[in-house]
Amino acid sequence: MDILGMNIDLAEVAGVVVPVVVQIILLLILYAIVAPIGKKLIERALNKASARQNASPGRMKTLEKLLINLFSYAMIFILIVMILTAIGIEIGPLIAGAGVVGLAIAFGAQGLVSDIVTGFFVLLERQLEVDDYVTTAGYDGVVEEIGLRTTKIRSFDGTLNYVPNRYIEGVANHSRGNMRAMVDIGISYDEDIDQAIKVLETICMEFQLDERFKDGPNAIGVQSLGTSDVVLRVVGQTENGLQFECERDLKKRIKEEFDKQKIEIPYPHQVLVQK
Amino acid sequence: MDILGMNIDLAEVAGVVVPVVVQIILLLILYAIVAPIGKKLIERALNKASARQNASPGRMKTLEKLLINLFSYAMIFILIVMILTAIGIEIGPLIAGAGVVGLAIAFGAQGLVSDIVTGFFVLLERQLEVDDYVTTAGYDGVVEEIGLRTTKIRSFDGTLNYVPNRYIEGVANHSRGNMRAMVDIGISYDEDIDQAIKVLETICMEFQLDERFKDGPNAIGVQSLGTSDVVLRVVGQTENGLQFECERDLKKRIKEEFDKQKIEIPYPHQVLVQK
Amino acid sequence: MDILGMNIDLAEVAGVVVPVVVQIILLLILYAIVAPIGKKLIERALNKASARQNASPGRMKTLEKLLINLFSYAMIFILIVMILTAIGIEIGPLIAGAGVVGLAIAFGAQGLVSDIVTGFFVLLERQLEVDDYVTTAGYDGVVEEIGLRTTKIRSFDGTLNYVPNRYIEGVANHSRGNMRAMVDIGISYDEDIDQAIKVLETICMEFQLDERFKDGPNAIGVQSLGTSDVVLRVVGQTENGLQFECERDLKKRIKEEFDKQKIEIPYPHQVLVQK
Amino acid sequence: MDILGMNIDLAEVAGVVVPVVVQIILLLILYAIVAPIGKKLIERALNKASARQNASPGRMKTLEKLLINLFSYAMIFILIVMILTAIGIEIGPLIAGAGVVGLAIAFGAQGLVSDIVTGFFVLLERQLEVDDYVTTAGYDGVVEEIGLRTTKIRSFDGTLNYVPNRYIEGVANHSRGNMRAMVDIGISYDEDIDQAIKVLETICMEFQLDERFKDGPNAIGVQSLGTSDVVLRVVGQTENGLQFECERDLKKRIKEEFDKQKIEIPYPHQVLVQK
Amino acid sequence: MDILGMNIDLAEVAGVVVPVVVQIILLLILYAIVAPIGKKLIERALNKASARQNASPGRMKTLEKLLINLFSYAMIFILIVMILTAIGIEIGPLIAGAGVVGLAIAFGAQGLVSDIVTGFFVLLERQLEVDDYVTTAGYDGVVEEIGLRTTKIRSFDGTLNYVPNRYIEGVANHSRGNMRAMVDIGISYDEDIDQAIKVLETICMEFQLDERFKDGPNAIGVQSLGTSDVVLRVVGQTENGLQFECERDLKKRIKEEFDKQKIEIPYPHQVLVQK
Amino acid sequence: MDILGMNIDLAEVAGVVVPVVVQIILLLILYAIVAPIGKKLIERALNKASARQNASPGRMKTLEKLLINLFSYAMIFILIVMILTAIGIEIGPLIAGAGVVGLAIAFGAQGLVSDIVTGFFVLLERQLEVDDYVTTAGYDGVVEEIGLRTTKIRSFDGTLNYVPNRYIEGVANHSRGNMRAMVDIGISYDEDIDQAIKVLETICMEFQLDERFKDGPNAIGVQSLGTSDVVLRVVGQTENGLQFECERDLKKRIKEEFDKQKIEIPYPHQVLVQK
Amino acid sequence: MDILGMNIDLAEVAGVVVPVVVQIILLLILYAIVAPIGKKLIERALNKASARQNASPGRMKTLEKLLINLFSYAMIFILIVMILTAIGIEIGPLIAGAGVVGLAIAFGAQGLVSDIVTGFFVLLERQLEVDDYVTTAGYDGVVEEIGLRTTKIRSFDGTLNYVPNRYIEGVANHSRGNMRAMVDIGISYDEDIDQAIKVLETICMEFQLDERFKDGPNAIGVQSLGTSDVVLRVVGQTENGLQFECERDLKKRIKEEFDKQKIEIPYPHQVLVQK
Repeated sequence: MDILGMNIDLAEVAGVVVPVVVQIILLLILYAIVAPIGKKLIERALNKASARQNASPGRMKTLEKLLINLFSYAMIFILIVMILTAIGIEIGPLIAGAGVVGLAIAFGAQGLVSDIVTGFFVLLERQLEVDDYVTTAGYDGVVEEIGLRTTKIRSFDGTLNYVPNRYIEGVANHSRGNMRAMVDIGISYDEDIDQAIKVLETICMEFQLDERFKDGPNAIGVQSLGTSDVVLRVVGQTENGLQFECERDLKKRIKEEFDKQKIEIPYPHQVLVQK
Repeated sequence: MDILGMNIDLAEVAGVVVPVVVQIILLLILYAIVAPIGKKLIERALNKASARQNASPGRMKTLEKLLINLFSYAMIFILIVMILTAIGIEIGPLIAGAGVVGLAIAFGAQGLVSDIVTGFFVLLERQLEVDDYVTTAGYDGVVEEIGLRTTKIRSFDGTLNYVPNRYIEGVANHSRGNMRAMVDIGISYDEDIDQAIKVLETICMEFQLDERFKDGPNAIGVQSLGTSDVVLRVVGQTENGLQFECERDLKKRIKEEFDKQKIEIPYPHQVLVQK
Repeated sequence: MDILGMNIDLAEVAGVVVPVVVQIILLLILYAIVAPIGKKLIERALNKASARQNASPGRMKTLEKLLINLFSYAMIFILIVMILTAIGIEIGPLIAGAGVVGLAIAFGAQGLVSDIVTGFFVLLERQLEVDDYVTTAGYDGVVEEIGLRTTKIRSFDGTLNYVPNRYIEGVANHSRGNMRAMVDIGISYDEDIDQAIKVLETICMEFQLDERFKDGPNAIGVQSLGTSDVVLRVVGQTENGLQFECERDLKKRIKEEFDKQKIEIPYPHQVLVQK
Repeated sequence: MDILGMNIDLAEVAGVVVPVVVQIILLLILYAIVAPIGKKLIERALNKASARQNASPGRMKTLEKLLINLFSYAMIFILIVMILTAIGIEIGPLIAGAGVVGLAIAFGAQGLVSDIVTGFFVLLERQLEVDDYVTTAGYDGVVEEIGLRTTKIRSFDGTLNYVPNRYIEGVANHSRGNMRAMVDIGISYDEDIDQAIKVLETICMEFQLDERFKDGPNAIGVQSLGTSDVVLRVVGQTENGLQFECERDLKKRIKEEFDKQKIEIPYPHQVLVQK
Repeated sequence: MDILGMNIDLAEVAGVVVPVVVQIILLLILYAIVAPIGKKLIERALNKASARQNASPGRMKTLEKLLINLFSYAMIFILIVMILTAIGIEIGPLIAGAGVVGLAIAFGAQGLVSDIVTGFFVLLERQLEVDDYVTTAGYDGVVEEIGLRTTKIRSFDGTLNYVPNRYIEGVANHSRGNMRAMVDIGISYDEDIDQAIKVLETICMEFQLDERFKDGPNAIGVQSLGTSDVVLRVVGQTENGLQFECERDLKKRIKEEFDKQKIEIPYPHQVLVQK
Repeated sequence: MDILGMNIDLAEVAGVVVPVVVQIILLLILYAIVAPIGKKLIERALNKASARQNASPGRMKTLEKLLINLFSYAMIFILIVMILTAIGIEIGPLIAGAGVVGLAIAFGAQGLVSDIVTGFFVLLERQLEVDDYVTTAGYDGVVEEIGLRTTKIRSFDGTLNYVPNRYIEGVANHSRGNMRAMVDIGISYDEDIDQAIKVLETICMEFQLDERFKDGPNAIGVQSLGTSDVVLRVVGQTENGLQFECERDLKKRIKEEFDKQKIEIPYPHQVLVQK
Repeated sequence: MDILGMNIDLAEVAGVVVPVVVQIILLLILYAIVAPIGKKLIERALNKASARQNASPGRMKTLEKLLINLFSYAMIFILIVMILTAIGIEIGPLIAGAGVVGLAIAFGAQGLVSDIVTGFFVLLERQLEVDDYVTTAGYDGVVEEIGLRTTKIRSFDGTLNYVPNRYIEGVANHSRGNMRAMVDIGISYDEDIDQAIKVLETICMEFQLDERFKDGPNAIGVQSLGTSDVVLRVVGQTENGLQFECERDLKKRIKEEFDKQKIEIPYPHQVLVQK
């Protein structure tokens, strides 16, 4: 055939084109096989994980969608690259050319990936849930929203904290089971320890009837011999979230009972030597 | 054909030139297809994100423009590199040669990329907005300007702080919803706690009528048994930005009422033992 | 043979196809040999390690399963890559193309790998076991669950802490053998040290009969000459977990005996010079 | 042709030489086109940026010169590398050989690049200007000179601090707009708060006439209930740089007026309980 | 020869097979030569090192075994890779494919390698030995076990600390030679320094006869002029491990002697100015 | 030609040898051109820099020698590598083989390069000079020697500090221009501030005549209202190095004048409430 | 020639073998030239360095041996790699295969290299010498041994510290020249400063005759006006190592002289206001 006055041998062209076409078809078949298998595997893995961790179905849906999306984009990207290579358009220089810029981006974007990886596990392992009271990454408050990149925590003073997930190095979750109520109360060195403990035990018996207490409270004895007072400790387990309220009630009750029983809660002491 | 006395076979030349031209045309077609699709995808993704986060249209415009610019530059760069390769000008050594220098630049510029990536998400997720009162990266103040690289925060003492976005590791935004007003007030160990709380509750009832308070304030009881005083706590929710003013008014009111009711706010105590 | 009007030489095709088939068969044979050997080696290595560390069979099972899974996935991945190469589908660009993205992921996922590597050794070396009281990564409490990625520690105040294993830089395990009970008690500078020690020794002799004490307690002498008191130290070894209880009992007993023997536990002293 | 008794075919030589010459010419043409376009683009970009930031023309000149220099060196370097490759002198080993040494240098020089990148943006965004009073990188003082690598800051004690730009992580610039003058003054618990505030307001009204104050000062109420005093706060906005002077004058005035009005500024209090 | 109807030229096959066989044989010979030489070298190097550091033969055996194992595994791995290459099975894609995963693992496993390298030198240089009392990596106690990956340190309170070797940044070993016993004792500003030192010297002379002291103790003079006392220092060298016991005895003796000699150990002083 | 019974075609050999020789000659010519040009450029660049910074010629000589040495070594290394490649000795494996070892060295030596790069700029920008009193890298003292790798700083207590240059993150140079002398003096709350300031101004006028003072000193007013005193501040500029001496003289003079004028410098105050 | 029934053309074999042999011979010649030159260069460089730093010949011998060993191993390694390549045994896969493992090792071993590089310079620059009293890497004591990897420092309390050289970030060497003896002494606000300084000068004159003092001591005036005392400073230079002894003697002498002269060294003062 003559194109632009140049002689092109069709058979030769075919000898080049056919294998390329065959390769592309092979690639498409491979893709048609691998893609649905991959998706199935992701679904099944998440189902298993969700069964083990009895996570809420809603969240599992989100994670599944995210993972399948990521998988699909990766598969399509790879397919395109391989077809381009099969056609003979060199993809190498493109990638090499993107190298230096890419490296800079990789370093910059590394935080983003880190955010998502951590966010994924925080969601999967249910370390945080909305309305949990947590301490993490230096922030303290109630979780308002958990995203793949950022978690929002509302501090008790009303501040809304945006925490990129990568800074969540460990989570102290204060909304998982009963909490401890603890009161340390100092009595004078001149008081009878046994009598003070007896008074504390009477108070504790009252509070043990309180529904908010799941265990105790109990007076467990002399915690320390301070510079001016003998410190006694009362400890109990309360329903989650009520520990501060219970401690406040305990403190008030102990103070009033000690006043009634004339047990002194001493001020700091100092011995003066006159010269 | 004879050029400079050398014999050049035109057919041979054509055999070299034609496939190159074909490749270039293919590349241009590919570019003409991919470029507008990419732009459309960016627009649609941002529209979706903006719908979900109900961001202001102005900001979304900025982000869209930025992303499309970046995408266009990348596409053109890749196009040029691939055409050069197709022509046969080796682009490899250029890139290899740029390697060592490039690595150094990559490390140096990594901060810049980090700034932009963080800035992008800070804008997209509306972590900061102009006139928000925030604490971030060790600075505390009102946001004056948010850029892709730098954010300007005006401290309350008048200082203008320039914060490269990469140092924004977490944002504590004090302008998102109601804020807490909290007053801790110590009374003498000799006072009747119940009476003091009753006085506090009377004051709280007055302030509950105050429009600035959205919730409370309430006297919630004995916060701690201090070395010289019994500390009572009053807590409420105020309109955003008025918390400090409300606390100041509460403090003044409590002090004056306690004076009137002869409830002692004690100085530090010390017991002296003479020797 | 004529396909689509093109002349294809079967012999030539065979000359290309046969070596590929041979290579694939060789690879499959190699795989069939290497895979079970690898599994056996892993089993045997773990059995040896478990024998040496007398770990519980349950945990060893878990580790074995994990390692064999990892090994199998790796083998299958390699097999596929090599078969694809043998067929002639270039796998290179795929991998090169994945390079930049891969690097970012590698950096992001590095924490995950770190978690698993540390988790593996924490399990293998039994640094932590469920119900151990430990201090690690800034958290203090009782281990509730040890996973390959995350360890859950329950603080004494009821908080549940999720600790990614990579942050476990060192483990202080308080549930390994006897614990020390130690009481430092200050007496007045005016008291006779010898007499005070004698009293302490009498108390110690009582407690030495206590089953909770495995060794001691003993009064070991003058620990320091403080600003206002001479500090004496009593030290003993108790059964694991009972150290705090024993210390409380010791403190109460010493305080009461010193009161009875009229040995003064002094308040802070200050000499006043009048001017 | 016979050289050193060897037979060299001129036509063959020409067949090798001609394409090389053609390539070199193409490269030179490309260079002649790209170089001035690049320079123009840099100029225009800077002009735009300068217009947006209304930077001083002098500084813009400096930045323009720097960027064009960098661009020219890069272009010439690339040109040489590509011509050498075209000639057939392998440049690869050179670069590979420079690899190990280069890596070490890259790591070492990375700081230098970081300095320049940061310096560039500090200049462009006018974060610092000569004679600004700033706090950055742990240094506090007046900027004496801003360079691309190092910034010189004169501390108030006379020390000259050399700060490599990469350590400028954020800039607190105290020379941008009005500054706050703030005085916290404690009054006795026995004083009438209302009367004290009235006195403060009278003083504030005097100062409001002072030209140095741009806003206020105003007495804003009870800042805190201290251990020994009720703390009142006075706040105003002064002209930049005069805030310390204004605070000093305010303090002196308040102290003298309180003396005249017999309002007590109390010493620390302590309640003594004799035993 | 005809296989599957295809004509295979045996001579051609031989031309391919023979060099491969030759290469493999060469590789095996090389291996047979290099492997035992390498082992010998390791043995000799360790023998030399052990002679220089007079390490216990038991430990040297352990290190030798470890190093020879590592060396053998490496040699066999290399042998396999090279034989596969010689056969013509491309090993390249396998390794490239393992690249991204490998990088992540490398980063994750880097801690493990660091542990072993540090552990190796800690063992070789005998920085730690079982039963040594050491301070390292923030832990303080007696070494219970030294492993290649983890070191176990028993704190004095009974806690068992597991320290990954990489965190051992420096070792403070308190079980290497004599230890210092030091007592700082404050006397009143009104006392005669010379007389107090004379008394201390008398006490020191008594203790110099004590077998536990290897050098001193001696009274070395006025260490500081404190706010309320003149501090004198007594210093001596004791047998390793007895320093705390000796200090306790010294303190008791000095206190009693000063009481007898009526040398005042003063309480904190304060001058009161009445107003 | 027959060598060892083998037939070697001289012409063929020549066809291989000649282009190699030509290449080598080309390389040598290139080297002969580039080397002196590079040296000239270095010299000129340094001359310019030295002119701008008016550095001492001695130092510039050192820097020039260092840079030219580095340049020469690099050129010769590149020349050798390229000639070896031209000859056909593959240099690739050598470099690849050096890769792993090289990487480890690169990481290790990176500190060394960092030292030299920092050292270079410290010298060039004259941040430090011998006999300057500086604070840098946590050390404080007088510079004794500045090297390319290490700087020696003599502390005032006589210690000689060796500081690797890479730890010089910023230099606070106390030997660049006048220094501030500042005295804060507290007067009693009962004193007349105006009178005290008048006394201070009289003293300042005396010192203004002192040659050591370049500016001031002046009494600038009430610095703060302390817990027990009103703090007044005196500030002036002295000749470099005399600031401490001047402060000492000022303090002595003020104390003596206040004594004469009966202005009280008060001790800490405390109000005692008896109960 | 017929081997195993296959026809091998000797001439062809020769055509392959001869250039290989020639290459190997060339490589050996090159090695024979480069190796001794390299050794000579190392020797000469060290001799020069040692001359400049007048280091002890013993140490220089050690460094020389180390460097020549390193150089020899590197040369032999390179020689083997190049010969293997010349023979045609592909060394590439070996190195690629070692890549992933190598990277992990490189990261792990990087600390070791860092240790040796730092150790090398610490030895060369004589920053530390055995028996020097130094502060480095958080340890304080006398150097007992300096190794290429680890330095041993004996603390004054007897502890032996093993410090890996890489943690030596800066060395404060207290054994280089005279040391400062400094005494700060507080006198009462009621004392005559001039008289006190005169007394101090008399004491200083006595000590100036003391051989241990190389310069001073001198009374340099009023260091600060403390809360309860006027602090005077005495400063001098003593022989290295005697500074603590001299300070002790000075303190004792001053205290006794002030007692004799009735100059009061005051206790902390407090003004009491009775209410």
